[in-house]
Amino acid sequence: MGRTLERVGDTWSLMILRDALQGLSKFDQFQRSLGVAPNILTQRLAALVEAGFLERRPYQERPVRHEYVATDLARDFAPVLTALMAFGNRHFFAEGVASQMVDATTGLPAEPVLVDRRSGKPMDSPDFVYAAGPAAGPVVLERVAQVARGRQS
Amino acid sequence: MGRTLERVGDTWSLMILRDALQGLSKFDQFQRSLGVAPNILTQRLAALVEAGFLERRPYQERPVRHEYVATDLARDFAPVLTALMAFGNRHFFAEGVASQMVDATTGLPAEPVLVDRRSGKPMDSPDFVYAAGPAAGPVVLERVAQVARGRQS
Repeated sequence: MGRTLERVGDTWSLMILRDALQGLSKFDQFQRSLGVAPNILTQRLAALVEAGFLERRPYQERPVRHEYVATDLARDFAPVLTALMAFGNRHFFAEGVASQMVDATTGLPAEPVLVDRRSGKPMDSPDFVYAAGPAAGPVVLERVAQVARGRQS
Repeated sequence: MGRTLERVGDTWSLMILRDALQGLSKFDQFQRSLGVAPNILTQRLAALVEAGFLERRPYQERPVRHEYVATDLARDFAPVLTALMAFGNRHFFAEGVASQMVDATTGLPAEPVLVDRRSGKPMDSPDFVYAAGPAAGPVVLERVAQVARGRQS
C-alpha cells in the first residue's frame, strides 16, 4: 500500500488519473477540469508518466504538442478511484451528488461494492482476514501477530 | 473525491486507518506497526478523530490512556483500502506479496473486484459511464461534457 501511495498518493495525481481514465488527455483539458495551476499540473503529469500510469505521446507537430493517455496500469487502478468516488458521494456531499458512475443502459447510479472474484462473497464479510503473504518481513509479521492478538481479546 | 482526500489523503493516515480497521487501537501498536515518528502519529491520529474516522476513548485511568477505534465511517472506507492493497500486490511487490486479504475458510487469497450491487456487473464494464449527478456545478458539467466529446472522437 505504501508503495502505491508513493506513486499516486497525492490529491492532484488522483484527480488527474480519474480524468485520464474518463478520456481526457490534453493539458488544457486537465487544467480546465481541475482548476489546477500549470506548474503543478506539469509536475504531476511528469510524475504519473514516470510511474507508468500515463503515456506521453505527440498528437501534433509544429509546434509539437503531447497528450497524456491512461495506461493499462492506470486502468487497473480504476477500482480504487471508483471506490473512493462512491465513498465521497455517500458521505461528503452535503449538497448532493456532483458526479457518479451510472449504468448507461438503465440510467441508474451504480453502487460499487467489492467482492471476491472467486467466491463472489463481499470483501467486508468476516470470512476475509488480513494475513501475511509469502514475502512478509518482520514488520508485517509483527503487525499480523498484533492483529491476531486483537481478534482474540 | 477531493473532499475525501482532504481528510485521509496522506500515506500515514491511510496506513493508520488500515491498521485500525484490522483491530489495532493503541498508540504503541500503531507506532510498532508503521515505524512512524511519534509526533507525526499524534498529529495524524488527531486529524483522523477530527474527520470522524477514529473515535478516541479512554481505556485506562491513572495515568489516563486513550485508544483509537475505527468508526462506522472508517469501516465504510475499507473497500478503498482493500482495493489499494490489492492493486499494490498486483504491481509493486517485486519481491512477492507481503500481506493480503485471505478467505479464512479456504485459506485462498482474495481477488477483490468491484461490482455494481444492483446488477452484479463488474464496474469496469463499458456499461458504466461517468455522469453528472443532481448537484453538479459548472466545473463538473464541463468535465462531463469534455468526457462525452472524448468518447465520440
